[in-house]
Amino acid sequence: MLAKKKYSLLLLTFAVGVALWWVPPPEQVEARAWHLFAIFVATIFGIIANPLPMGCMALIGIAATVITKVLTFQEAFSGFGNEIVWLIVFAFFISRGFIKTGLGARISFLFMRLLGKKTLGLGYGLVLTELILAPAIPSNTARSGGVILPIIKSLANVFESKPHQPTAKRMGAYLTTVSFQATCITSAMFLTSMAGNPLIVELAQDLGITITWGSWAIAAIVPGLISLAVVPYAIFKLYPPTITESPHAPEFAKEQLHNMGKIRSNEWIMLGVFIFLIGLWIMGPTIGIKATVTALLGLVILLITNVLTWQDIRQEEGAWETLIWFSILLTMATQLNKLGLTQWFSNWVAYEIQALPWISAYILLTLVYFYSHYFFASNLAHIGAMYATFLAAATALGAPLGLSAMTLAFYSSLFGGLTQYSSGPAALLFGAGYVPVKTWWKIGFIMSIITILIWQLIGGLWWYAIGLFDV
Amino acid sequence: MLAKKKYSLLLLTFAVGVALWWVPPPEQVEARAWHLFAIFVATIFGIIANPLPMGCMALIGIAATVITKVLTFQEAFSGFGNEIVWLIVFAFFISRGFIKTGLGARISFLFMRLLGKKTLGLGYGLVLTELILAPAIPSNTARSGGVILPIIKSLANVFESKPHQPTAKRMGAYLTTVSFQATCITSAMFLTSMAGNPLIVELAQDLGITITWGSWAIAAIVPGLISLAVVPYAIFKLYPPTITESPHAPEFAKEQLHNMGKIRSNEWIMLGVFIFLIGLWIMGPTIGIKATVTALLGLVILLITNVLTWQDIRQEEGAWETLIWFSILLTMATQLNKLGLTQWFSNWVAYEIQALPWISAYILLTLVYFYSHYFFASNLAHIGAMYATFLAAATALGAPLGLSAMTLAFYSSLFGGLTQYSSGPAALLFGAGYVPVKTWWKIGFIMSIITILIWQLIGGLWWYAIGLFDV
Repeated sequence: MLAKKKYSLLLLTFAVGVALWWVPPPEQVEARAWHLFAIFVATIFGIIANPLPMGCMALIGIAATVITKVLTFQEAFSGFGNEIVWLIVFAFFISRGFIKTGLGARISFLFMRLLGKKTLGLGYGLVLTELILAPAIPSNTARSGGVILPIIKSLANVFESKPHQPTAKRMGAYLTTVSFQATCITSAMFLTSMAGNPLIVELAQDLGITITWGSWAIAAIVPGLISLAVVPYAIFKLYPPTITESPHAPEFAKEQLHNMGKIRSNEWIMLGVFIFLIGLWIMGPTIGIKATVTALLGLVILLITNVLTWQDIRQEEGAWETLIWFSILLTMATQLNKLGLTQWFSNWVAYEIQALPWISAYILLTLVYFYSHYFFASNLAHIGAMYATFLAAATALGAPLGLSAMTLAFYSSLFGGLTQYSSGPAALLFGAGYVPVKTWWKIGFIMSIITILIWQLIGGLWWYAIGLFDV
Repeated sequence: MLAKKKYSLLLLTFAVGVALWWVPPPEQVEARAWHLFAIFVATIFGIIANPLPMGCMALIGIAATVITKVLTFQEAFSGFGNEIVWLIVFAFFISRGFIKTGLGARISFLFMRLLGKKTLGLGYGLVLTELILAPAIPSNTARSGGVILPIIKSLANVFESKPHQPTAKRMGAYLTTVSFQATCITSAMFLTSMAGNPLIVELAQDLGITITWGSWAIAAIVPGLISLAVVPYAIFKLYPPTITESPHAPEFAKEQLHNMGKIRSNEWIMLGVFIFLIGLWIMGPTIGIKATVTALLGLVILLITNVLTWQDIRQEEGAWETLIWFSILLTMATQLNKLGLTQWFSNWVAYEIQALPWISAYILLTLVYFYSHYFFASNLAHIGAMYATFLAAATALGAPLGLSAMTLAFYSSLFGGLTQYSSGPAALLFGAGYVPVKTWWKIGFIMSIITILIWQLIGGLWWYAIGLFDV
C-alpha cells in the first residue's frame, strides 16, 4: 500500500477532476470537450502533485477518458502511432548506442578537454553545438535526442551523475535544463530549425506578410544570441550543479582520451550512423524523408551491425516510459484541440480585449498565446490551433502586422520550454530522468519570464531598428 | 559484429524480399499491394530463419515499408494504437501482479495438489479451465492473457522452468503450447468465446442461414470435446516436457500451501481484481465495455493500490517486445487486406476451382481458407476479408450451405493456432518466451492437420447426424 500522504494527494487529484467536470461549461463549448478538459487538468495536476509516478498518472488519466466515454478507445490510443513519439523512442535507442560503444564518452572527453574546467563551460559548449546544428536539423526532437542528449548522458556519466538519484544534481540536471531551454531558443531562430516554422510562414502569408529564411533569421539573431548567452548562466544561478569547478578535468579528459586509444569498429559504425543521421536530417525536407524514418533507418543499421542488440532495446526503460506518458498527454491535447476547446479559447480572448489600445492588446495576446502552451503537447498543434486566430486578432486590434507575426512566430518555439510535455525535446530531456517534475516546471516558468523580457524589450528595439514595424 | 552464418541468413532474407518485389504482380493486383506482400513474406521468412531476434526483423520489415514508400509513416505505425495490441500489453502487466503477489503460485499449487502427479495432468487441468471460461469470456486474448498465462508462468516457475533458457522445456513450453492450441479450439466452440464469431453470424445471415448460440454450440460440441481431449496428449508426444512424472508433487504442493499461510492484503487485492476482470469480461458485451478497457481498469487498480509499481511496468520487457513485433505484423497484414490482396486471392481461388464437384471444391476452399491464415495477424481481419466470399463460392459450386457456413465458422478460430502472430493469444503465449519460433510453427502445422481431420471426419459425421446437411 502507499503512504497516507500519497493517498490524500491522489484523492485531491480526483477531486480536482470531478469538481471541474461539474462546473457548467462556457457557452459554445460542448460538454464532451469540457469533460476532457477536466480530465486533462486533473492529470496534469496529478503529475505535478505526484502521488504516483508520471506514467501511472497518465494511465489513470487515459483510463478516465475511456471509462467516461469522453474518448473512444481508438481516439485515446491514437497517440501511440504518432511520428514525434516514435522519433523520441528511436532517439532513446540510438543514444544507447552512443553510450555502449564509448563514442559518447569520447566526444564528452573532447568537450571536457576544451571547456571542462567549469560546468558552466560545458553548458556553453552544449549551447554552441545546438546553435551550429539548429539551421540544419529542422526537427528539434532529432537534434536534442540524436545529438545533444547522448553527449549529456555521457558527460554526466563521466562525473558519476546518475538519473533518478541524488547524484543527478551534480551535472546531469544542469546540462539537461540548459540544453532544453537552449533548444527552444535555437528553434525560434531559423525558419529551418523547427518543424512548425514553415507552417507559420504559410499562415502569415495568408494574412498578408511574407517571411523569408533571411528575414526570419535577421529578426531573431539579436534576441536569440542574447538569450543563448543568458541561459547557461541564469540556470547556473537558479539551479546550480553541485559540481561547479573541476580544475583538473581537462587534464583528466586528456588522459582518458589517451587511455581509450584508437576508435574501434563498433565506435566507427556508431560515428558513421551519427554522420548519416545528421546528413539525412539536414537533407530530409528536400528529398522527402521524415526525421522519424531517418532515425528508424539509423536504428536498423545499429541492429544489423550488432552495435545494439535486441536486448538493449527491450531494456531501454526510459523509452518505454516516455512512450506511455507522452503519447497519452499528446492524445489528450490533440483531442482538446479537435473538440474545438482551443478555438473557442482564442475567440474568447480576442473578444474580451477588443476595447484595449493596440500595445496592451498586443502584449496580452502574445502572453496568452505563450502561456496557453501549458495545454499543448506539441508546437505544431499549438500553431495550427491558435497562430492564425491570434495574428488576425492582434492586427484587427491595431497592432502592426510585422511585429505581431514575428512575435507570435518566435513564441511558437519559445513556449516549448514550459513543461515536460510541451515539445518533443521536453519529453526526451525530461525523460532522461535527471530533473524532478516540480523543478522542471519551476525553471520552465522562471526562464519563460526571462525569455519574454529579452525578446520583448531588446527584441522590440531591434525589430524597430530593422524596420519591422513603425509607431 | 554478428557471426557469418547470421549474415548469410540476413542476406537470404533480403534476397527473398527483393526477388518477390521484382516478380510481376498478377493482373488486378496493384504494384503497391504486391510490394507490401514481398516485404511481408521476407519479414516472416526472416522471423523463421532468425538471423536476428523477431523484434529486430519486424523493425527492419517496417523500415522497408516506409523507406520504399509502400506505406506512409502513419499507416506503418497505425498498429500501435490497436485495441488487441494493448489488451496484450495490459495482460502482461496484470500477469506480473499474479506472480508478484504470490496468488499465481497459490493457484498453481492448488492445481498441482489436484493434478500434479503428471505434467499431462496439469495440461488437462488447463484445458478444463479454458473450457469453463470460454463461453463467458468472449475475448480469447483476455482469457489467455488474464487467466491462463499467469497460471502457466507460476506453474513453470515452481518447477524452475524459465523462459528463453534450456529449462523452458521442463514444463513452460509444454503448458504454453497446450493452452495455445486449446484456446483456439474453445474459441471455435461457442458463439461467445471469440470476438469474431458474432461477425460470422451476421455474414452468414446475409447469405441465408441463421446461426443461434444453441445451434453453434451443438454443432461444435462433439468435434470440440474430442479435439480438447486429444490436444494435451498429442502435444505430450510431439513436444514432450522434460519433467513428465512428479509423484511427490501433490504432497509438495500441499506443504507449500501450508507454508504460504493465509492470503495477505496484496494477494486479496489481486484476487479481487481477478474476479473483477472475469466479471467485466463476461458482462462487457452487454454493458458496452471493451475487454481492453476492462484490462486497463484492472491495471489502474493494481497501480493505485501499489500492488504493481511503475517500476514493474517499466521492466516488463516481454510486454514491450510484443508491442513492437505484434503491432508491426498486425499492421502489415491489415494493410495487405486494405490494399485488396486478400480479396483478389479469394476471387482467384473460387475462379480456379469452378469445374470441380462440390465435395472437392468444399474441401479445397475450406483448406485454403484455413491455411491462408499464415498471412493474417487477426481472426477478425481474416473473417472480414474472406468469410463471405468463400461461403458464397462454396455454395455457388454446390456445397451445402449449412455445412460450408459452419466449417468456415469453426476454422475461423481453429486457424489461430498456426503462428505466433495468428491471433491475440498467439502473441501473448509465444511472447511468454518458452517456445522457440521454429518449434512454434512446426507444432502449429502438425496440430492443424490433426484438428482438421477431427473436425472434418468426426465433425462431418456428427453434422450429418444432426441434420446440418444432406447428401
